[in-house]
Amino acid sequence: MINKLTLIGVGLIGGSLVRALRRAQLVKEVIGVGRHVANLELAKGLGVIDDYETDPALAVIDADVVVLAVPLGAMKSIMQAIAPHLSVSTVLTDVGSAKGSVLADAKTVFNDRIENLVPGHPIAGTEKSGVEASFAELFQQRRVILTPHAAISATALGVVRQMWQACGAEVIEMSVEHHDEVLAATSHLPHMLAYALVDTLARMEDRKDIFDYAAGGFRDFTRIASSDPQMWHDITMANQTALVEVMKRFRTDLDQLITAIESNDSVFVQETFERAKKARDAFCDSK
Amino acid sequence: MINKLTLIGVGLIGGSLVRALRRAQLVKEVIGVGRHVANLELAKGLGVIDDYETDPALAVIDADVVVLAVPLGAMKSIMQAIAPHLSVSTVLTDVGSAKGSVLADAKTVFNDRIENLVPGHPIAGTEKSGVEASFAELFQQRRVILTPHAAISATALGVVRQMWQACGAEVIEMSVEHHDEVLAATSHLPHMLAYALVDTLARMEDRKDIFDYAAGGFRDFTRIASSDPQMWHDITMANQTALVEVMKRFRTDLDQLITAIESNDSVFVQETFERAKKARDAFCDSK
Repeated sequence: MINKLTLIGVGLIGGSLVRALRRAQLVKEVIGVGRHVANLELAKGLGVIDDYETDPALAVIDADVVVLAVPLGAMKSIMQAIAPHLSVSTVLTDVGSAKGSVLADAKTVFNDRIENLVPGHPIAGTEKSGVEASFAELFQQRRVILTPHAAISATALGVVRQMWQACGAEVIEMSVEHHDEVLAATSHLPHMLAYALVDTLARMEDRKDIFDYAAGGFRDFTRIASSDPQMWHDITMANQTALVEVMKRFRTDLDQLITAIESNDSVFVQETFERAKKARDAFCDSK
Repeated sequence: MINKLTLIGVGLIGGSLVRALRRAQLVKEVIGVGRHVANLELAKGLGVIDDYETDPALAVIDADVVVLAVPLGAMKSIMQAIAPHLSVSTVLTDVGSAKGSVLADAKTVFNDRIENLVPGHPIAGTEKSGVEASFAELFQQRRVILTPHAAISATALGVVRQMWQACGAEVIEMSVEHHDEVLAATSHLPHMLAYALVDTLARMEDRKDIFDYAAGGFRDFTRIASSDPQMWHDITMANQTALVEVMKRFRTDLDQLITAIESNDSVFVQETFERAKKARDAFCDSK
């Protein structure tokens, strides 16, 4: 049982996490932390949090678990604010979509005393955001990746593992580097392509016609371009290295496809589409 | 009333069209044409067609309307096969996703006698294909673009317009060139990106992990990469010019985004994402 959980950043992911923990009766008291009192009042009204603080330093006192569910760009300043007030037994975890940057921030702020830090990333979410979109089932049968580091405490790791399992998630461990590479490819790159595509079209002269005649496939394809720009800015910058590498790899492949189309290389085009369909169908069959 | 409609290519689009026309009681007899008897038997069994021929030349005799619903790469040879057998009053239309190539094929085959040709493109479909996936409601409240040319007969245009309206579609006219540019941007480019992305990931070393940890957004984003490779090969080659132009435009924008991420240009990244989200949300609000 977690007697006191402090949730810093009360949005879709954090809100859904505490909703699920409440339902599993794994948490007694949840204190929300945020900059906007209106949002915290909303979360309290929805029964997501019991009470709130706007000062993270005050909120973490006596907490068993502190969950950082803020944009990646805000992690470091939050860590700086709470560092002097964490007890030696408080487990600190996060839900950020890149893990290298969180670990680097923590090492700097905590002077390498990071045994209670368990970097985590639930592979779940929608293009919606905000606590009003949160729901207890968000993590059911989803994967949560934990990226333990050399200094991690087995106790802290166990607490966070149990927490996510109580939400119905499958907990997996991998290295920080592998996580950041895999997520760059499967999540961050698609977001870049969706944002870039919509932006390219929006800046074309006949943009009105373009959006008028876009059909169903376009809606699905661009859904992720409706995701929160601030959050995705932070993810992009936090996972810069791995993301740029896979973006360049994609660009090389795209260049080859353009050249093939221009030079009437039917075989290349057909084979590319066939390989892709096969891989995509296999991916879907396995889910 | 259409006494005899010859449907060449009995798949998702053609099958859905004749299902809708039957329901609207606008057609008496539908003859299907295809290379595979098993598929034609299936279509007959499903009540989509009344009978079939494997020789298009025989099938078009006495037809009021001939609908070409074959991949774009097959249009020219089909036109050559049927040309000597079309009556002067037979209306010829197609459902191809590119219109310049169809018009060019027709001009060549029919020696510029194309008054009865009404190039058309229903903006509808799914990533599924085949007559077994067809349904009468596919075109309801969808748009159908007709691209009339200088020589077109008003009667033929009226027949095709009425046909699609009977399917519940909104019929719109635009020039061949504008159609091909707009569709390159909204449909063909997204398909290229989806195919290229899945193929890029499928050829990475840790492909297993990559597809294992792909989440919901990836499924939506890549849905169109499950589309029929042959059909998309043909569309790609048929709309080569307009498609390559918009692909290069996209590549330039992607390059700028990569450069911005690499050089820590937070403002550029954030503004790109914000513009895209705004455009995408506006697109969805208007639908």
